[in-house]
Amino acid sequence: MIANANRQIVLAARPVGPPRETDLRLVEAPVPEPGDGELLVRTIWLSLDPYMRLRMGTDLRYYPPIPLGDVIVGGAVSRVVESRHPGFQPGDIVDDYTGWQDYAIAQGASARKVDPALGPLSTAIGVLGMPGLTAYLGLVKVGRPAPGDTVVISAAAGAVGAVAGQVAKVAGCRVVGIAGGAEKLRYLTQELGFDEAIDRHADDLPGALAAACPDGIDVYFENVGGPIGDAIYPLLAHGARVVICGGISHYNATEPPKVASHLAPILFTETEVKGFNIFSYGAHYEHARMRLARWLADGRLAFKEDIVEGLENAPLAFQRLFDGRNFGKLLVKVSDE
Amino acid sequence: MIANANRQIVLAARPVGPPRETDLRLVEAPVPEPGDGELLVRTIWLSLDPYMRLRMGTDLRYYPPIPLGDVIVGGAVSRVVESRHPGFQPGDIVDDYTGWQDYAIAQGASARKVDPALGPLSTAIGVLGMPGLTAYLGLVKVGRPAPGDTVVISAAAGAVGAVAGQVAKVAGCRVVGIAGGAEKLRYLTQELGFDEAIDRHADDLPGALAAACPDGIDVYFENVGGPIGDAIYPLLAHGARVVICGGISHYNATEPPKVASHLAPILFTETEVKGFNIFSYGAHYEHARMRLARWLADGRLAFKEDIVEGLENAPLAFQRLFDGRNFGKLLVKVSDE
Repeated sequence: MIANANRQIVLAARPVGPPRETDLRLVEAPVPEPGDGELLVRTIWLSLDPYMRLRMGTDLRYYPPIPLGDVIVGGAVSRVVESRHPGFQPGDIVDDYTGWQDYAIAQGASARKVDPALGPLSTAIGVLGMPGLTAYLGLVKVGRPAPGDTVVISAAAGAVGAVAGQVAKVAGCRVVGIAGGAEKLRYLTQELGFDEAIDRHADDLPGALAAACPDGIDVYFENVGGPIGDAIYPLLAHGARVVICGGISHYNATEPPKVASHLAPILFTETEVKGFNIFSYGAHYEHARMRLARWLADGRLAFKEDIVEGLENAPLAFQRLFDGRNFGKLLVKVSDE
Repeated sequence: MIANANRQIVLAARPVGPPRETDLRLVEAPVPEPGDGELLVRTIWLSLDPYMRLRMGTDLRYYPPIPLGDVIVGGAVSRVVESRHPGFQPGDIVDDYTGWQDYAIAQGASARKVDPALGPLSTAIGVLGMPGLTAYLGLVKVGRPAPGDTVVISAAAGAVGAVAGQVAKVAGCRVVGIAGGAEKLRYLTQELGFDEAIDRHADDLPGALAAACPDGIDVYFENVGGPIGDAIYPLLAHGARVVICGGISHYNATEPPKVASHLAPILFTETEVKGFNIFSYGAHYEHARMRLARWLADGRLAFKEDIVEGLENAPLAFQRLFDGRNFGKLLVKVSDE
């Protein structure tokens, strides 16, 4: 049964600093009609990810800003309600960037059919979806871990960091995670198999990191940015790689933070620092997904979800990504499977 | 005729901040005797380079610090006075890291015989030596310029920057140099063929750079460091490469300077930032040198020298590398050819 109206969360105003409640607005629109080659889908699981904050801004160097009034972008797992594409039947499960709304039109040519045998449906936008692929490909393609390397990961208990750390363990590395709070630290070492976990608010973060990385840091997987680098860069080993995968501490800032220049350690150690954007690695998605799915099945890849019920609660939940309250892949359950 | 005494400049004290006159001391020692496989050489041309300041410090991430009391390291072009190695005859010209002294022992196994047909002898430690190889290999191996790229070079009138810019012109790039003062700017555009030259003290450096780089910056060749990056990084084009070749503004500093974080532009543009140290590229030296020599012979590679007479004047001359007074490859003429 299709509802009469389609609830959507739209961009009412561009946030300046942290998003305010008035920047995102719940509106109702008619349920759309699919055209030829299109699918009408009902959103089940909506993924909330830090990159969405960037799309709410105006920086043209990243992906195009969301126009004012448009539905907020986002990956979702949905059920096909009506199909006008021969590759899909009603009832199929698809994964596409259909955004923050109850119903959406997906393009049959680009929507991805989810294989429910690989894991719970929500994993298609979690450990087996964009965050998992980001972790795997960012680590493998840019971080290039060698067995024996020391890999440090910031926001290590986050959706990306947790997978990156577990993949680095599979790769034979010593893995050190940085996260906030005793519960997350315990999770990293006790449940995910990290070798060490350090609190980002530690009194002496540089000292704690140095103690955890006696041979220096070969790979740093950056998800946070800001002053954390002041503790990381001086410990880089010769030939280190820094994966600039994200910088959540920057996304709400109106000016880039001031940090100690990293020039000298980069120069001295011939370190490579490289920005990573998953959308440049599309050719590798299925290959990476199959590896992650195998490790998930083998029990080598654990994951944790932080589930919020109801589309209407997405805006408030989104803020939890930025203040450290979120723990596990943040998902909105929009409707029943 | 061999002198009775060997004048040497030794490290009397580790500089804190800019080197003081008392940090380097002229001493006299006996002229050394070569052993089996060794050469006694007389220094003709001594190269003064910024990296020497790093070797006067204590940072173990770079090459080993010079022990207190030891001769200052440095590349030199010398004449063989006495040879106990079958590959060399008295009168041969060699290029080796024999340091700041009148006479030195060179190892026959590692000293490089200079071919005088390639250019004036001084070019063996200039445009055809370490600075030229640094420019060529840093640009080619890390910068990877594509035809049509916009390449920006800091300290562009320096020994490395001037070669890097000319090689980038050969590579079909638009080349923009940053240097200090009208004389250097004129040199870059009028004599070296740079497309644009910008004063590092310009009132609006970001604006001037943006005007000179309408398609953004594809390759940034960094020789300076510090706040100059605040103007560069926001202009990086997608897939840019930043060659961290040097950071002369850092070498006399006791703490790394504070700069605006470059995380966001690196992330958004998937830029690669990589430290470059010429000593990791030894296998490519001769290949690179032959290319530079061909362009020198063809007139496609110009160079300028800044010559100081007398070993005793090396310490004062060395300071000129750091305050912008140096213009051209800084050389000390220690003795006649």
